[in-house]
Order: sequence, then C-alpha cells, then structure tokens
Amino acid sequence: MDKPSLPSGTRDFSPAVVARRRFITGAIESVYRLHGFYPLETPAMENLSVLLGKYGDEGDRLVFRILNSGDFMQSVPDAAKAEGSTRSIAPHIAEKGLRYDLTVPFARFVVMNRHALQFPFRRYQIQPVWRADRPQKGRYREFWQCDADIIGTDSLMAEADLMSVFHAGFTALGLGDYVIRIGNRKILEGLAAQSGRPELFRPMVTALDKWDKIGIDGVKTQLSAAGFTEAEAEAIASACERRTLDAAAIDNLAARFADNATALEGVDELRSLLSFGTEARMEYDGTLARGLDYYTGCIFEVEIPNSGIGSVASGGRYANLTGVFGVPGLSGVGISFGLDRLYDVLDARNGFPADTGTATQVLFCPMDIAAQPLAFRLAAALRRNGTAAEVYPDNAKLKKQLEHAGNRGIPFTVIIGSQEIETGEFTFRHMLNGSQEKVTEQELYSRFRS
Amino acid sequence: MDKPSLPSGTRDFSPAVVARRRFITGAIESVYRLHGFYPLETPAMENLSVLLGKYGDEGDRLVFRILNSGDFMQSVPDAAKAEGSTRSIAPHIAEKGLRYDLTVPFARFVVMNRHALQFPFRRYQIQPVWRADRPQKGRYREFWQCDADIIGTDSLMAEADLMSVFHAGFTALGLGDYVIRIGNRKILEGLAAQSGRPELFRPMVTALDKWDKIGIDGVKTQLSAAGFTEAEAEAIASACERRTLDAAAIDNLAARFADNATALEGVDELRSLLSFGTEARMEYDGTLARGLDYYTGCIFEVEIPNSGIGSVASGGRYANLTGVFGVPGLSGVGISFGLDRLYDVLDARNGFPADTGTATQVLFCPMDIAAQPLAFRLAAALRRNGTAAEVYPDNAKLKKQLEHAGNRGIPFTVIIGSQEIETGEFTFRHMLNGSQEKVTEQELYSRFRS
Repeated sequence: MDKPSLPSGTRDFSPAVVARRRFITGAIESVYRLHGFYPLETPAMENLSVLLGKYGDEGDRLVFRILNSGDFMQSVPDAAKAEGSTRSIAPHIAEKGLRYDLTVPFARFVVMNRHALQFPFRRYQIQPVWRADRPQKGRYREFWQCDADIIGTDSLMAEADLMSVFHAGFTALGLGDYVIRIGNRKILEGLAAQSGRPELFRPMVTALDKWDKIGIDGVKTQLSAAGFTEAEAEAIASACERRTLDAAAIDNLAARFADNATALEGVDELRSLLSFGTEARMEYDGTLARGLDYYTGCIFEVEIPNSGIGSVASGGRYANLTGVFGVPGLSGVGISFGLDRLYDVLDARNGFPADTGTATQVLFCPMDIAAQPLAFRLAAALRRNGTAAEVYPDNAKLKKQLEHAGNRGIPFTVIIGSQEIETGEFTFRHMLNGSQEKVTEQELYSRFRS
Repeated sequence: MDKPSLPSGTRDFSPAVVARRRFITGAIESVYRLHGFYPLETPAMENLSVLLGKYGDEGDRLVFRILNSGDFMQSVPDAAKAEGSTRSIAPHIAEKGLRYDLTVPFARFVVMNRHALQFPFRRYQIQPVWRADRPQKGRYREFWQCDADIIGTDSLMAEADLMSVFHAGFTALGLGDYVIRIGNRKILEGLAAQSGRPELFRPMVTALDKWDKIGIDGVKTQLSAAGFTEAEAEAIASACERRTLDAAAIDNLAARFADNATALEGVDELRSLLSFGTEARMEYDGTLARGLDYYTGCIFEVEIPNSGIGSVASGGRYANLTGVFGVPGLSGVGISFGLDRLYDVLDARNGFPADTGTATQVLFCPMDIAAQPLAFRLAAALRRNGTAAEVYPDNAKLKKQLEHAGNRGIPFTVIIGSQEIETGEFTFRHMLNGSQEKVTEQELYSRFRS
C-alpha cells in the first residue's frame, strides 16, 4: 500500500498551528466587527460562469475546475471527442470551480441579494481560496484571505475606515511598525496623459511595477525604452517616488498636475482620505498598480519593514465591481489580510503570544481500573467549572501516564490510587517542577475556580 | 449577461445565519476543548488515492473530483481517448478530490504524523465536506461536520468521554432532551451467529436498519424472508428493541447470549461504558448498524425527539481505522455533530439566543461634510473601548441615515451637525423608541464603558 500523502501546495494544520492561526484571524475578526463589518460565508464551489473572465487569462488558467458528476463524457459533442484535446473537451466536462478569491464571490452575493441588503453594505469574510499556482516557499494552492469590503458608497471615508482597520489590526497583532503604501489609479492615468502619451499607460505601469526590484534608475531606463523622453521619464519617476503621505506631499502632487483633471481627482481623493484624521501609518507610493483591472481609485499595499516578506495586506477602490454581473453603479472599497504571510512574519519574529492554545489543564491519572470511575467524575466536575480536564483512559503504569502529561505540556496531574480513594485525599502534582501535595476534592475544585 | 447563480446544493451564509451557525460551533468547540480535544484542520483537496475505496462504491461515486491543471488530456492514453467514455477517461484527468468526510483525512493525518503524535491522541475538526449527492431539503452538497476522535486506546472510557461530550454539547445548545441511541456491532454479529446463521449477518442488518420505517412486525417479516425461522426472527427482534440503557437492560442482554463470546464481549463493552457514571441520556438500540464498514464496537446516533429530523450526531468505535493506510493496531472512537441539521432543529424551535450577532451598537450620523471628521474621531474612540461603531459615510439627509440604522437594527445613533460641534453636545438617539437627549463627548464614552 502506498504511503498516503497531501496534494502539493496544501497543508495540514496541527493543533499548535491552528491555535496560532486563530490568534491572527481572531484579532482581525474583532477589529472588523468593531468597525461594523458583518460576517459572510460563500461556498467553496462557484459556477465557472461566475469565476472565469474576472482574473485575466492567467487567472482563468489557475482556477481549479471540478469534474461534473456522473457520466460526464456523455455531454461532450462527438467533434470535441474526436479532437480529444484539452481545449475541446474542458468546456464540456466541468461547470464548477473552486473559489479563486473572496471578491468575486462577494460581488456575486451582492448582485443576487441586492434587493435585501442595506447599502452601504459592510461585510467581512475569512475563508480559504484555491489557485493552481506552482507551489513554492510561502505560496500555497490552498490559502486564506481575510477580506472586508464596503459597497454602495463613493465616500473617501470608507477608505479612511479601512486605514483605521489596518491600524487597529496590525497593532493588535503586535505589528505596529507596518506601513501602508497608497497609490491611486487616477494619478497614474493622469501621469501618462500629462506626458501626452495616454497610449503608453500600460508600459508605464509595467515599468513602475518593477521599482522595488530595479530601483529608480532602472525604471527610468525602462520608461525611456517604452517611448517616453528622458524628461518625461524623470517627471514620472519623481512623481511616483515613495514619501510620507501628508499635506505637504499632497500639495506637491497637486502642483505637478495643474493641467490634468483626472490626476487632480486622484490627488483630491488622497486629500479627502487624510481629512478624517486616521492614525494609520501611510506613505504615498505612486508605483502601486496592483489589481489594475478592477481598481479605479486608491490602491493599498501593507508591508512589514525588514520582514523579507512582500505585502501582507492589500486593497483598493473599485467603482464598478458588480458591473461584471450586469449591475452597474455600486462603488466599493475593500481590503484583504493574507493570513499565511502574516503567520510567517509573526513566526519569524516570535510574535505569537505564549498561550495561544486553550490546552488541557489537568490530566487525571488513575493507578488502577478501580480508580477510573472516580477520576472520570472529578474530571467532569472540573469541566463544569470551565477547566479543561482529561482522564488517562488506559490502565497504564503511572510513569507512562505522567510522561504523557509532560509530553503534551499539561501543567497539572492528579494521581488517584486505592490509598487516595480510602483517605479521600488525592496527589496533586505540578508537572513543571515535579512537586506533589495532597488535596481533598474540595481543595482540588477551589484551585481551578478563579 | 446571465444572472449569476450558486451551484445547486450550495449556499451563501448571510451575516445573521453565520452568527447562528457560530453559536452552534462555538458551543461544540468549547465542549470539545473542555474534554481535552485539540483542533486540527486538513485541506479541502485530498489525493483520490486517499479518498477512494473508503466509502464503498456509492461513496466513491459521490466524491467531487478536481480536474488536473494544465493540458490534462495529454496524459490520457490513446486507447482511452479512442474509447472516449467516462470510465476510460476519468482515471487519467483527475488526481485530487474534495474531502468527503473528516474521518479519512484524520486517519491519513495520523498515519503521516504518527511518530510525532502523543497517543492517545484527541483531536477535533470543524470543517465543510462535499458530496455529489442529489440535493434535497436538508441535504446539501457542501455541509459541515464537527468531529472529535480519540485514537490509540481500547478503553471504553473513551466512549464514556464522548457520551459526556454529547451531554455537555446538547445541554449547551438547549437541546437537553436529546437521546443517544447506542448499538454494538459485536452484539449484531453474535445475534446472527447465535441463530446459527452467520452468513445471514448482512441481510439481518439490512432488515433491522428499516425498523424506524416498517416497525417490529415489518422487520420480523423481512428477517423471515431473508431465511431466519420465525422463532429466530422473534429472538433477534426482541434482542434489538430499544430500551433505556441501564444495568437491568445489560443483564437481560447478557442472559440472551450465554453461548456467544462475541456478543458477550459487546455486552461487556456496554457495561464498561456505563461503569464510568456518565450523565448522558442513553438508550440501547440493537438496530443501529451505521457505517458498518468501519465501526467495530459501539455505535452511536443522537436524535432530538419530535424534531422530525433524523440523527443530528453519530459516531462509533473503529478498531482499525488507519489499517487502510497500512498502519494497523490503532483503535479509536469518534463522534460527529451535524451542523446543518442542528441548525434546522434549533431554527424550528426558536432555539437560538436573541443576541447571537455582535452587531454595530452606534451609528454616527454627520449632518454635513464638516461634521464627518469629528464623527470619525468619536467612532474611533468608542471602538478603542470595545464598542462596535460606524459613521454613515455619505452626505445624506438625516432621515435616510436614521432609516439605515433602523433597518439594520443598530440600537443607538449620534447626530452631529454644526450646532452640535459648536456646543460640544451631541444628539443621542435611542432607535427603539425614538427618544433623544443631549450628551457631551465624555458622557457618550461613559455610556458604553461598562
């Protein structure tokens, strides 16, 4: 028999890891709730008609498809069968796929339920997504997103709210040194237009996107190669350089775009965002263009300095997310924390609290079968007081039972043998230092009552 | 553009439903933790080599298969392509499937990690599973199981522990009238053997399984039709009839099996189970045979009387679960609560607490744009005290803002206009009765501090 294994890019989460992951999701979830976001859950499977065409060609290729049930080859037309290629067969044998992100399912939910929802509608969603990407360090085929979106308002206060969520979330996680990089799609468009080269918008974005890797000089070279003059390349690079996002930075940007209404609209959005007085640590970063295909205004990426890990959260404004499902006019803004990368950052920093797991506090060790029912009853009584307790279920040597407690990090054991039953006093052992004392039933309860 | 839809048998869970589902999973999870179970999570996708052959032919058919990524037809041999049937193609284009239950992934996990685990190992797992069953009322293609298993012990104390879990779990859910039906595979085997008809074991089990539908007389007729004499049928039916599980019932059963060691072993297991003195409400039900293919000892099913819904939880002992993966000798016992059925039972009884949702407590209503930053700052301050607060983000008429609060069930609003900014006193409105009063910033905070 073959040894069983896991599909590549997927993971089991052992109890210790689950506890740490829940520390993260718990912190994010409580921040979301404090900001008025309500939980939504959608199915793992979506119709391919919902998923495809939303993530670009590359995204479509990465969607996991689910084989139709039953005699699926029956619905393949003869011509397609005769061709026998993936391209000819695939459309006929799979109608469903696994969720690729949480944004498109959210848009689908909003469209399907728009008459019942109260707008602006705020929802959060913490669920796994699946992508048939090549697995590598830090990149999995099943990974978790923690999204929050506000849909049905144009107000920049929604962006400011989400900056406040970032601040509270990263602070709760002990990652108060986070930095939110903020860009704006309208400023990018204005930049290309201002150079008189709106047609060079995409090559410009491609060049800017490489800033972190090739630096400002590399970007300028690429911009020139794309067709911008040296002066234009200089102007673009200098407008996109990272800087603290404050009133001075905004005035400086505004001055650069005297003639461009689109860019000025983008600058005004940043000014509005600042006007609410959020405490978040924000920098302007003109190079940000992620999710270009649906973000229309502000774009966010959060990084933890010196973590060696890319962005741990991101988001942006999409003026027309539900338009792809035939319902225009709903503007929204959303963010997503990446659970797996946050885990890696906290793990590298020893940033998890020591007691993430609610572990068993007491292991009862019956020294013979006759002592088992009493141990069982005492454990039940402790649980009623809220203390996690177990009884070692087998009739094993005391040494083995104590080792079991020690290996599992259970802090206390209660030893019960015939002598203990007779006297009504049990041996209470502190596993950390091995010290023992005698306690009555009532004394045992009172130790765990506080 | 087509209206988007959900795959059949799947559901979105709106915020109100998520809150109620979490009431259920939260209760079960805290009972599991009190009993020393630790959380495990496994991936949605498993290799088909892990899943297939574990659930019978029918189960294999119901596993959702995931199409291999990339050019999947390339790996189909020419002969299979030429045949072009589902049977010839399927094995070559899908290597992964969606989790069908939580037990087989658990067995896989134990086998893969057996050298690192401390036995007896207790884990719980609350995750969705997927089955390509025909959807109908109460039966979904994506549904949730809440499992707990103890593996690595033969002790009947493990069964008793799980009865204690059932008791605490159903009590916490307000379903204290639950009844655990308990059967035992060994007693069933002994019954067939005692009649001198071990070869009639499966037809006997099939007949007994219909008891709830056709009654004792129907079962006897079926047993006779299967080849048992009338007297044998009578003896089998009378041994399997439901009764309170107490010492008298066990003595009565023991007396019936004077000659059959296997059956007596089963009766002894029931006696052991009782000896620990669990408070659980248990009945003996000799007709239970669910999951016959891997349960080897006690078998459990829990029902809520008069709910009109079948079993809401189940479980049993499996002496050799990991044997299918080549690791024999690990005996375990497990249970599973069915989240979706529990939801239906509680829903029909109005059994959910009124306040399952942590909803927004305060909506700030700025009467003009100038009031927005102040509202934003006050909301942030309330959140720091742990109160969920929002600001209406758009510059809308007060009436519209108050309606939004009313429709969402937000209990309090704080109205801020130019007058309020000037005087430093805000209008605090109780949405339930519409009464209003003036409060200062400090008074506002102190209202939500307790």
